[in-house]
Amino acid sequence: MKISVYALSIDIFTNALANLSVILEKGVAYATAKKFDPNVLVASRLAPDMLPLSRQVQIACDLAKNSASRLAGIDPPRFEDNEKTIEELRARIARTIEYLKSIPASSFEGSEERDIKVPAGERTMEFKGLTFLQRWAIPNVFFHVTTAYNILRHNGVDIGKRDFLGGL
Amino acid sequence: MKISVYALSIDIFTNALANLSVILEKGVAYATAKKFDPNVLVASRLAPDMLPLSRQVQIACDLAKNSASRLAGIDPPRFEDNEKTIEELRARIARTIEYLKSIPASSFEGSEERDIKVPAGERTMEFKGLTFLQRWAIPNVFFHVTTAYNILRHNGVDIGKRDFLGGL
Repeated sequence: MKISVYALSIDIFTNALANLSVILEKGVAYATAKKFDPNVLVASRLAPDMLPLSRQVQIACDLAKNSASRLAGIDPPRFEDNEKTIEELRARIARTIEYLKSIPASSFEGSEERDIKVPAGERTMEFKGLTFLQRWAIPNVFFHVTTAYNILRHNGVDIGKRDFLGGL
Repeated sequence: MKISVYALSIDIFTNALANLSVILEKGVAYATAKKFDPNVLVASRLAPDMLPLSRQVQIACDLAKNSASRLAGIDPPRFEDNEKTIEELRARIARTIEYLKSIPASSFEGSEERDIKVPAGERTMEFKGLTFLQRWAIPNVFFHVTTAYNILRHNGVDIGKRDFLGGL
């Protein structure tokens, strides 16, 4: 069986983001049960100089959207970073998943060898498609999804690794 | 180009673990600069009912070792969970990487379709090789590596996402 770049990008990213959405929903449930404003969680951080939950979710979405688009050789839509509530963050995730699923599988044909350029401040990183997935896109998406999980978990939200893995 | 299971397991896991080792080394450097015992970090957690740094590292190593072994169809060696210092945790990582690199690439031939069974308490999860990688092995390894990173970052260690990504 041929392993496709689609399976390594769209499948992995949509699954990770869908699980993140469920985790965020559990954050709202926890806040409601404890009678605090769930949006306190949106601004929570693990360290004063780390990004808050809202940015972790936005960046996870953008990394998935932009990485898949680069591999598919298409220009991604730009999403504003204006979410202020967990509901809005979950809508951002839903919109990202919808976009990811709209990319035709055929666009990824041969993309494991495609030249991928990633602007990073003043420099540009260059990868072949497969290395881009291994070293950049996959680790980076999981970094932000896990950090979002850890921010909620640190604040007492009743979640476990099983939620992160989508109930497995 | 054919994308191999080797590239999606051994390459990804050895890279993630090598980066984790550098991050742990920075934890020691930070503790030394701040004049506290670096082994305080080993027992640190993000929540009282989460696992400490030591277990995050041990589990990341075991998930990489056991997942790659399952895909390759071989019995993994068993490593004791007896590390008490960051140096010992880094040695555990080195031993895991050495083991991962010792698995012949040929063992992974066709493993994307292999039946993989994972014991989980009283039940057994069953996957095809590729789904096992997408849904279990890759997310799980990154979950524990990122959580180890977050424990250190939460405690003030001077690390950034670039360290997590291996200097990219």
